[in-house]
Amino acid sequence: MTFPTRDECLALDASDPLAAYRDEFVLPDGVIYLDGNSLGALPRRTAAHLQHVVTQEWGQGLIRSWNDAGWFEAPRRLGDRIGTLIGAGPGQVVVCDSTSINIFKALTAALGLRPGRDVVIGDRDTFPTDLYMMEGATAGTHEQRLISADGPALADVLDDRVAAVLLTQVDYRTGRMYDMAAVTAQVQAAGALMIWDLAHSAGAVPVDLDGCGADLAVGCTYKYLNGGPGAPAFIYVATRHEDATQPLSGWHGHADPFAFTPDYSPAPGISRFLVGTPPLLSYAGLEASLEIWDRVDMADIRAKSLALTDLFISLVEARVGSHVEVVTPLDHAVRGSQVSLRHEDGYAPMQALIERGVIGDFRAPDLMRFGFTPLYVGYADVWDAVDVLTDVLTTEVWREPQYATRLAVT
Amino acid sequence: MTFPTRDECLALDASDPLAAYRDEFVLPDGVIYLDGNSLGALPRRTAAHLQHVVTQEWGQGLIRSWNDAGWFEAPRRLGDRIGTLIGAGPGQVVVCDSTSINIFKALTAALGLRPGRDVVIGDRDTFPTDLYMMEGATAGTHEQRLISADGPALADVLDDRVAAVLLTQVDYRTGRMYDMAAVTAQVQAAGALMIWDLAHSAGAVPVDLDGCGADLAVGCTYKYLNGGPGAPAFIYVATRHEDATQPLSGWHGHADPFAFTPDYSPAPGISRFLVGTPPLLSYAGLEASLEIWDRVDMADIRAKSLALTDLFISLVEARVGSHVEVVTPLDHAVRGSQVSLRHEDGYAPMQALIERGVIGDFRAPDLMRFGFTPLYVGYADVWDAVDVLTDVLTTEVWREPQYATRLAVT
Repeated sequence: MTFPTRDECLALDASDPLAAYRDEFVLPDGVIYLDGNSLGALPRRTAAHLQHVVTQEWGQGLIRSWNDAGWFEAPRRLGDRIGTLIGAGPGQVVVCDSTSINIFKALTAALGLRPGRDVVIGDRDTFPTDLYMMEGATAGTHEQRLISADGPALADVLDDRVAAVLLTQVDYRTGRMYDMAAVTAQVQAAGALMIWDLAHSAGAVPVDLDGCGADLAVGCTYKYLNGGPGAPAFIYVATRHEDATQPLSGWHGHADPFAFTPDYSPAPGISRFLVGTPPLLSYAGLEASLEIWDRVDMADIRAKSLALTDLFISLVEARVGSHVEVVTPLDHAVRGSQVSLRHEDGYAPMQALIERGVIGDFRAPDLMRFGFTPLYVGYADVWDAVDVLTDVLTTEVWREPQYATRLAVT
Repeated sequence: MTFPTRDECLALDASDPLAAYRDEFVLPDGVIYLDGNSLGALPRRTAAHLQHVVTQEWGQGLIRSWNDAGWFEAPRRLGDRIGTLIGAGPGQVVVCDSTSINIFKALTAALGLRPGRDVVIGDRDTFPTDLYMMEGATAGTHEQRLISADGPALADVLDDRVAAVLLTQVDYRTGRMYDMAAVTAQVQAAGALMIWDLAHSAGAVPVDLDGCGADLAVGCTYKYLNGGPGAPAFIYVATRHEDATQPLSGWHGHADPFAFTPDYSPAPGISRFLVGTPPLLSYAGLEASLEIWDRVDMADIRAKSLALTDLFISLVEARVGSHVEVVTPLDHAVRGSQVSLRHEDGYAPMQALIERGVIGDFRAPDLMRFGFTPLYVGYADVWDAVDVLTDVLTTEVWREPQYATRLAVT
């Protein structure tokens, strides 16, 4: 089987329209970082922006910065900027809390909009916090039905008892991607509301929430969006659902938070999905990275993402195809921005790779996962990563005992 | 009426055992900061620690820092350190989410421990987010009864239908402080659970949660603890309530979060009160400030706090007693670490004060609020602040029209 040479990969890097963005990120020497789908790399501009927020806005401005530095508006301001990356018009997205907590809000809001329906649908294969939050949000009130890649399919379980469907657009393990428009239409045809988890979509693939007529969505900013470790999440609620409410009715979601009235009155619009005081140092990390994203065309991201994953898949199949199984779809239409390889002892080979500077991650029970972030991963990186992977797998160095020791976070 | 001279205040500063801490904080030139009960001042060490977390832990360590830099344990590690300031033994406190969200968890957990009881009690005078969250957490399931300084009293509404009582130890408006041991005993004698909101207590007054037998508590780290704007909150659950659960059942609260099983199984102990991925840049701010708090004796804080508030009250009464009413209790036993002055046009005088470098805040409808943070406020600061206040009130400069324009955040 033929595959590209390293020189051919270098030529692709030289003609890459996104190549200049690489210099906007800090990348450690000797590391090929293929885990930006778990924690995005550090933008160079972030450290200085954080210093400004800490020393000037907090240190000098103190409490006055709630007005003067725009802290109070940060959840809405950053929400609108993320909205441009996911096809959401202004006033429908706020940055707040964690993805898990936003799932709770989205689910409870959706259930409130569909009284009399007593079923929710989730995906057994999804990142489990979605299922855990569904369990907490619906225990004792709604029956849970789970679809799966192995069946049942959505059509098998969707009926007029279903209030809401929660699906992650890009599967965290396999990288398989749903057709957002088609699934949204299918769910809405049954009278249910569609909630999208965009954890592995935002900044990874083009998303058009408004165009697809999505009802609600949540997502993450610390993966492809490079907002920093645990950067605040976001929630989208379509404008037509302006009457939706959710039970985490904190003061930042109040219509008049500084009137200090004892009764809760939800703010008009998306602000009612805010709860408590936002962790502003973490917002500052996201604000810095969005300065990059404001300039990026998601079509360029998608084109390079598919080229990188195509390259990785072709090199893996040619060089170590007998050692691993590519579980990510080959069909572009249903592929996100990652490639996962099945290996029955996947944990140890991944530790051996990481020790050699190729950082991906492992997802139980048997997947080696590699994320491709077009802003700072190049074609030669892919070639070099597969070269190291080939060495690790063919020499079986991963069988050395030190690679079997489990870390707390895998 | 006699009152201390400025020289006498300088002498008090010179003999203050906490005086050296002032140099550990950044305080803007020309500012007397009496709003540390809303947003604590910036510790000098914080900027460097943030830079380390950003450039080294995130930038160089990347995903590996979840293990290598202890990110995964941060909620428990910082929780135990806060525990030492509020009388909570190890393993009972985690740092996470916002105070509002932690109120939701504490309330739902308490209600789950008291099945068959259908009433919750709150305080009409409390910071309203506590009431808003109670409304969201109990709508349709529990009757809400509200006590107030104007009545009814707790004894009037406490009966065997009450599942839980949520009170803020130090009132955000008046600075009035509950006797934590006595109220906890009163509530528990009725078979209910006691939840304390320590927003204006942690780092302000000595608290002994374990000693008082408190059931649950929540609190804030961006006020007296100086963790930074919107720094993550904390929640305390007494070890004996190890079976308590709450519906925000996210993956960081799972018994084995990296097994990625589809069913939720709560972690043993306090970890089950965690939800999603923590905003680690905001945790870094708190971690830096706790380096100071680890060295502080809360008895010293209390002694100086009472001396500062006594001084402020005596100066205010002597110099502008005819313009304002001191609403904070004179009795030390029931006074927190703030003093509030009633003035029928309180908003405009506070804006005039802030323009002159004396930063307090206004709380509707008519309170000028001044917080006294013993780590960085001195006796001469108090003298100077009252001197400016005297000028603003006696000249009536606050009647100038520019001070009437309302800001978004008051």
